[in-house]
Amino acid sequence: MKIGIVGLGLIGGTYAKALKRYPYTIVGMDIDESVIHYALQNNIIDIGTTNPSDVLGDLDVVFLCLYPKAAVSFIQKHITSFKRDAIISDVVGVKRFLIDRLDVYQNDDVEFVFAHPIAGREKVGIKYSDEAIFHDANFVITPTKHNTLEALNLIETLAKQMGFKNVSRIADYEHDDIIAYTSQLTHAIAISLVNSDTDKYDTGLFIGDSYKDLTRIAMINESLWSELFLNNKDFLLRRIDAFEKQLDLLKDALANKDQAKLEELMRQSTKKRGDIK
Amino acid sequence: MKIGIVGLGLIGGTYAKALKRYPYTIVGMDIDESVIHYALQNNIIDIGTTNPSDVLGDLDVVFLCLYPKAAVSFIQKHITSFKRDAIISDVVGVKRFLIDRLDVYQNDDVEFVFAHPIAGREKVGIKYSDEAIFHDANFVITPTKHNTLEALNLIETLAKQMGFKNVSRIADYEHDDIIAYTSQLTHAIAISLVNSDTDKYDTGLFIGDSYKDLTRIAMINESLWSELFLNNKDFLLRRIDAFEKQLDLLKDALANKDQAKLEELMRQSTKKRGDIK
Repeated sequence: MKIGIVGLGLIGGTYAKALKRYPYTIVGMDIDESVIHYALQNNIIDIGTTNPSDVLGDLDVVFLCLYPKAAVSFIQKHITSFKRDAIISDVVGVKRFLIDRLDVYQNDDVEFVFAHPIAGREKVGIKYSDEAIFHDANFVITPTKHNTLEALNLIETLAKQMGFKNVSRIADYEHDDIIAYTSQLTHAIAISLVNSDTDKYDTGLFIGDSYKDLTRIAMINESLWSELFLNNKDFLLRRIDAFEKQLDLLKDALANKDQAKLEELMRQSTKKRGDIK
Repeated sequence: MKIGIVGLGLIGGTYAKALKRYPYTIVGMDIDESVIHYALQNNIIDIGTTNPSDVLGDLDVVFLCLYPKAAVSFIQKHITSFKRDAIISDVVGVKRFLIDRLDVYQNDDVEFVFAHPIAGREKVGIKYSDEAIFHDANFVITPTKHNTLEALNLIETLAKQMGFKNVSRIADYEHDDIIAYTSQLTHAIAISLVNSDTDKYDTGLFIGDSYKDLTRIAMINESLWSELFLNNKDFLLRRIDAFEKQLDLLKDALANKDQAKLEELMRQSTKKRGDIK
């Protein structure tokens, strides 16, 4: 089986490294010649090119490891170059956006399996690619009415081979709803927490693990995340509101010196967080 | 030098372990006989007792490793038992509360050096005590007008010996202001984030490192943290408001599809977080 990876960044590079351990031919595509050079030199891919048209006709599975808009542009430009029966997958964190734009390209020749590997790092680029980020991580597939069970199962198998712990299937709008909570809201919070620093003190002298943990993701790639936020606006706004309502409950308890209510909210979060495996 | 540690929990146990590597006699006090037994058996302390009055008269330095109210009660009960010129320190995370209540006990016989080791874990109890939690961690001393430079320097030396990276001195109200931000606000956020889960999905299948990082501290000791929140109410309420204002800026940018503003907020948080060492 020949597997193509479009975009050898942090995630694409990690896909390549993780799949290279199996008897697949890994073909890397990137617009940056030096990235292809690095990937070949470090034995991350078997074949590399900056010209996808040269190789797409030969690939059984192609992973688009690109930002949302770039993934759409790639398909618009290259849809006619794919091999017959090729399976195309992606890594985009907002699924309705992508499916709305790409499902029209579904035809007898190619099949899209839309997916979201929930993994990342603050660093970008192939040099930081590392299979460890997939271990213990979640992988989500959002099937559409066009999908065959065979194609879904193949992507699930590849995800498991890459080291993902859980692979689940869920509707695109459900994905976007829960991801607005687990991923986009957490980033919105981290950004706002850091930005609310008054800069009156030398903050670094007064932080512990809690601040470090809550602000790690405040160092954020603004091009990617503004795309993700804007393309999941409806769900993210609802999740921010729900979070603020909870914070207001806590604020009111505090203002009213209501220790019993504060303790109840803390017991609730302890229980709820403990229930998540 | 004989050093007493009152309360052999996670922090007290770690103080004992960290100081035991130096030629000090470590005397542990706890209300729980089995904890004293465990600490003696595991060579964490040299001497142990459930009856502080038996040993306090012999100790040069005493660390109160107790919750805020318990620290106050201990001093009220035992102030006359301390050795002449003893130095008493503490680990309480809200300093105005403690100083308001204990500064009246300052006299020619004992000196209080109020301090806050910014370190912890979700687990409680001596069995989880571990010197690693002090490495790379911050230690804050809040001097009062009664303090001698000798006593402040002694506690600073002991903190450095325990492995703390930075030891700083700051006024009690400044401590409470910045700690409301770096510690109490982060816990308030984590609690509210977890409690805002709609429970519509199997959340564990859709989380990544960001959710794990932001919610670790949502598993929280409600007796300790409700005390800390309530005794720093004024500063914490102000910090929650400032955070909500920032979150609202982001929410407005999102609602208005203002990508430039979203990216500006993200660049700001990236820069601010990167500047904190």
